[in-house]
Amino acid sequence: MSISRLKSNPNQNRNPRILVIEDNLDHQLIIENAIQQSFVGVEAVLVATEPEAIDYLDNTALTGNRLPQLILLDLYLPDREDGWNCLNGIKSRSPEIGQIPVIVFSNSAYSEDITESYNLGVASYVVKPADFTEWVEYFQTLKEYWWETVSLPSHKSMY
Amino acid sequence: MSISRLKSNPNQNRNPRILVIEDNLDHQLIIENAIQQSFVGVEAVLVATEPEAIDYLDNTALTGNRLPQLILLDLYLPDREDGWNCLNGIKSRSPEIGQIPVIVFSNSAYSEDITESYNLGVASYVVKPADFTEWVEYFQTLKEYWWETVSLPSHKSMY
Repeated sequence: MSISRLKSNPNQNRNPRILVIEDNLDHQLIIENAIQQSFVGVEAVLVATEPEAIDYLDNTALTGNRLPQLILLDLYLPDREDGWNCLNGIKSRSPEIGQIPVIVFSNSAYSEDITESYNLGVASYVVKPADFTEWVEYFQTLKEYWWETVSLPSHKSMY
Repeated sequence: MSISRLKSNPNQNRNPRILVIEDNLDHQLIIENAIQQSFVGVEAVLVATEPEAIDYLDNTALTGNRLPQLILLDLYLPDREDGWNCLNGIKSRSPEIGQIPVIVFSNSAYSEDITESYNLGVASYVVKPADFTEWVEYFQTLKEYWWETVSLPSHKSMY
């Protein structure tokens, strides 16, 4: 990465915060470790269910705390309908919450799961990698894309 | 990039096709050249207005040809309302068209432009880079993210 690229980082003043919605505790641990290895200074908030996710987002917005800039959502939570309900729940909150990009992470590579997730408004669909090294590579790519290339929405309470 | 990563490329069997909606002809040329330099085998379809974009998408779907897997949309087309109208036009077509991820590229780094674009359903918002080298770097990041990490929706007529 060139110095000029680092200088132009559109989100360089933000402390990254990612909300991870994942009911598999092994995957929670892998994701947390991979994020720590790929993102310096990121805060990963981990929850296991839709109600926990919605409570966290609502309370964060209500108390004026920083909302996460990105949401990672496991689709099979434990059924895909649970993941889609969670996605709809997030998208139908206040604009401040609904505009946060949601990335679905799933073991499923079924075309129907991918297509329906895009129809419901996910920013991206990523099939879960097979091993820890690949998880770290995935999060490095996510970091380079979402924090160093893309401009994320600015929440009033983000900084 | 490791060989194992290339093997797991979720979209390796697809010929990339990107629709670029850009009314600035200088930027069209830069984008076309940067895409050619970053993506081997990609087909970039360039149009300048919303009606051209909608016609292209509708005709491609109607004739059973491959739809683009990604859409790059200039926001100020020439006004931002034109870009948002175009985004709404794409999102309200058939599900096959509406599910294609749309990335807004714009000279504007205004918070309102970014936030409203996410509210209207863009997959990402990217501020246009300053020089050609940075454009090439941007498209390399886009390629690594969208073609080598993310699973894109499968259209019936995509292959």
